[in-house]
Amino acid sequence: MPIAIDTRFDFTLDQPTDIILQFEAAAVPEQTILETTTQLNCADAARVPAHDGVGERVLFQAEGKIEVAYRALVEVKRLVPEIAGLAQLSPHDLPGETLDYLLDSRYCPADRFQPFVEDEFGGTAGGARVQAIHDWIAQHFTYELVSTASTTALDSFVERRGICRDYAHVLITLARASTIPARYVSCFAPGVNPPDFHALAEVFLADDTTPGGGAWYIVDATGMADPTETVKIGIGRDAADVSFLTSFGASQFGDKQVTVTRT
Amino acid sequence: MPIAIDTRFDFTLDQPTDIILQFEAAAVPEQTILETTTQLNCADAARVPAHDGVGERVLFQAEGKIEVAYRALVEVKRLVPEIAGLAQLSPHDLPGETLDYLLDSRYCPADRFQPFVEDEFGGTAGGARVQAIHDWIAQHFTYELVSTASTTALDSFVERRGICRDYAHVLITLARASTIPARYVSCFAPGVNPPDFHALAEVFLADDTTPGGGAWYIVDATGMADPTETVKIGIGRDAADVSFLTSFGASQFGDKQVTVTRT
Amino acid sequence: MPIAIDTRFDFTLDQPTDIILQFEAAAVPEQTILETTTQLNCADAARVPAHDGVGERVLFQAEGKIEVAYRALVEVKRLVPEIAGLAQLSPHDLPGETLDYLLDSRYCPADRFQPFVEDEFGGTAGGARVQAIHDWIAQHFTYELVSTASTTALDSFVERRGICRDYAHVLITLARASTIPARYVSCFAPGVNPPDFHALAEVFLADDTTPGGGAWYIVDATGMADPTETVKIGIGRDAADVSFLTSFGASQFGDKQVTVTRT
Amino acid sequence: MPIAIDTRFDFTLDQPTDIILQFEAAAVPEQTILETTTQLNCADAARVPAHDGVGERVLFQAEGKIEVAYRALVEVKRLVPEIAGLAQLSPHDLPGETLDYLLDSRYCPADRFQPFVEDEFGGTAGGARVQAIHDWIAQHFTYELVSTASTTALDSFVERRGICRDYAHVLITLARASTIPARYVSCFAPGVNPPDFHALAEVFLADDTTPGGGAWYIVDATGMADPTETVKIGIGRDAADVSFLTSFGASQFGDKQVTVTRT
Repeated sequence: MPIAIDTRFDFTLDQPTDIILQFEAAAVPEQTILETTTQLNCADAARVPAHDGVGERVLFQAEGKIEVAYRALVEVKRLVPEIAGLAQLSPHDLPGETLDYLLDSRYCPADRFQPFVEDEFGGTAGGARVQAIHDWIAQHFTYELVSTASTTALDSFVERRGICRDYAHVLITLARASTIPARYVSCFAPGVNPPDFHALAEVFLADDTTPGGGAWYIVDATGMADPTETVKIGIGRDAADVSFLTSFGASQFGDKQVTVTRT
Repeated sequence: MPIAIDTRFDFTLDQPTDIILQFEAAAVPEQTILETTTQLNCADAARVPAHDGVGERVLFQAEGKIEVAYRALVEVKRLVPEIAGLAQLSPHDLPGETLDYLLDSRYCPADRFQPFVEDEFGGTAGGARVQAIHDWIAQHFTYELVSTASTTALDSFVERRGICRDYAHVLITLARASTIPARYVSCFAPGVNPPDFHALAEVFLADDTTPGGGAWYIVDATGMADPTETVKIGIGRDAADVSFLTSFGASQFGDKQVTVTRT
Repeated sequence: MPIAIDTRFDFTLDQPTDIILQFEAAAVPEQTILETTTQLNCADAARVPAHDGVGERVLFQAEGKIEVAYRALVEVKRLVPEIAGLAQLSPHDLPGETLDYLLDSRYCPADRFQPFVEDEFGGTAGGARVQAIHDWIAQHFTYELVSTASTTALDSFVERRGICRDYAHVLITLARASTIPARYVSCFAPGVNPPDFHALAEVFLADDTTPGGGAWYIVDATGMADPTETVKIGIGRDAADVSFLTSFGASQFGDKQVTVTRT
Repeated sequence: MPIAIDTRFDFTLDQPTDIILQFEAAAVPEQTILETTTQLNCADAARVPAHDGVGERVLFQAEGKIEVAYRALVEVKRLVPEIAGLAQLSPHDLPGETLDYLLDSRYCPADRFQPFVEDEFGGTAGGARVQAIHDWIAQHFTYELVSTASTTALDSFVERRGICRDYAHVLITLARASTIPARYVSCFAPGVNPPDFHALAEVFLADDTTPGGGAWYIVDATGMADPTETVKIGIGRDAADVSFLTSFGASQFGDKQVTVTRT
């Protein structure tokens, strides 16, 4: 059952400004892009692999009103085990490329939360710890549009409110404070309400099918997205790395429409 | 004229704790490691490539007193042009792997500084901009041990004080706010006072010897290290990525001795 | 030439919520309230003197839609000397009741700015220092609605943008860092654009007409308000003390209209 | 059983610097100062009433090494009811002079904690709410010297560690978020370990002996001080208002000795 994506957005630049966009389904093994169309009224856009090679960044310098339209049909074939049963890998058993995802990042100051996770989730580890973090957020947080570009997981933790970006940041932060690699995933998913680009987390846990191996598993603290239907756009250490629009200078955002449906 | 490094430090862990160390000269083209000895009283340490493949991380879980001793002799062959004359590359001309270094990171919230850099350094670009940032920091900052693990470039910018870590964070932040990729380098260098691990910045500018090409150039806002004698340990988006000691749990730091001499 | 004030605003409370309002011209010696009408659709409102006895706070608990209308005609007789010529009083010569205004407050973390004021305004003192701070803000800041309820003077200082509240916070912070008492004034003033409640600062400097004496002098870093036409509502250590609406629970703000005219 | 206080401390000023000290037992009704001696090697110190008229501030400008010695014998007659049984007063029933203690201050950003207190302590009010906050802090916090002059209640809440200052800030913040006036008390108390100046909170609740009345009640989240033996130095909205040493310029702190004993 492929997922149909139809999104358009525009923004205006008063003077020539450098822009990075990342808004398209990524070519990763567990999702097959059946059809895709991107329209962008801007010549000379460069494309480069995005963070850790997942998805692409579209780069250009432009002025005036920029309109972006993107349609795609994507087949998702993602295995989704029960997370709670998966073991944790010690840092010295982790693949080297996952270690950056244990460290603090712009919106996820994880080191400050070590006493909290010990205190609150002390009896758990691995997937059970992640599940406990997930449940704690689900129980204590209210979905509310209160965050700005400066809001960190620390702010959201204190205020116990936020949107998908903030839910993901808190889960990532508490997972890293538990010595579990965690990263930020921007994505499309049906069922997101209000419809928009979505964000959730991935954690790195032992792969129970491969002795000694590990894998990234999706966790959505908001509960809105089903991992088997989630279309990844990109990944990063947090939202700073996979914003759908990064502007090096002032920009006025216009309209945005995101429609994601099961076909 | 090789650089001789002799460093030792110890720390104590009250319970089994996961540790990441990164304290050795990196094997990168512009520095040749002539001799090296590492002593670490800890079995079962794993080694993996560090951030972006520069240097190595040493990983283990241990308890009790851990002692680390490292000696090396390193030949540095680094070309150091006048930075002020180098041009800036537009984001869409940058190699994809440098783009992460334009984005905000844990200690470098660059997006908030766009108005400041325009206001203060508006007439400059590229290497001249970096030179202006360097000079502005040199003129306005006092070298003083006031920072903690939570201190960001924003804090240091306001307080106009800090140590090498903070000087580097401010320079990186203001460079990124100027759309110039900038990264953090942990290193050994003779002349650092008081003697210790050192930190400085690298910026990505046009390479005047290769049309269309670019390269990373060292800039030390503290003025203490000479780039031709600087031995790189590792690089990162900021200090969070290349701490010489990252502890996933409480640790008591003991002694540290760092001696770096021209032989 | 009296100042005519006509303001109305409303807000909605989903459940019984405690509210503090402070929105009326204060009865202080230098302004005479010629006419005044307050309408508030809420029984049982208490009135108490506001911060330091300037103006009144209106207190009540209510639910549903609350509508406030206030009209007044106020004669302002405020002497406004050239600030730049006034001397500074040493802390030990200050009246005891001004000392709190030297200390850090919610939005004005002044102690962190001592190195900055020394570095930037080192050759000046007293009124000349305040004038230099005023001019520095006027030159470097852009009036832009970017702040939230959490934005401090530190944030505004870094981003060099804000509204009247933020301009006042930065001026107050830099004055206190210069050992000059400074406080926040909420007010009505003609010429404020867009029309709204306004905020500016008062600094405590030597009164050149009374040997050994001192007085509070208005300074508006935005340049929009003329002190001889400014109608004070209240004063505080910063905006936290004189918000026109403080809600102890969720509230939805509705419309607001503020008209201030010279008659 | 009077309390004997013997304290001395010194600090050095490299250049003439303005200083505010507040380190002596306050003359308040519930404590009688039987004997007192203050020695301060500094001429021309002024004395003014401190925040809200409780205790005194000593003001001077000096250079060089300043030595302060203070001895006193104080009889404390403070009634200490069971807090958990006391009712809460609605803001519109509070005395006007307590309202500032409902508002945010430098270290106590209470407004951000409204969702948390509702979520965590939702079924309680008044003294029972304060008791629940006290118990929650006692259960979840570790007494550890991790804070700096910039550490707010938000930082301590996240890190769940701190000293008496931080325990008091968190309790004050959560009480204010619960619409209960709360203030900071600097004090001497026997049993403080390690011996030092101490800090705790006071909350304003209904006085069960006076219909409609209210009073301030001591609460020590650290559990170290007994309210019947606590000698108040001063009060404030938070630590910014009652620091024993405020320096308007650089100062090097020397030794400090605080001995408080039951006689």
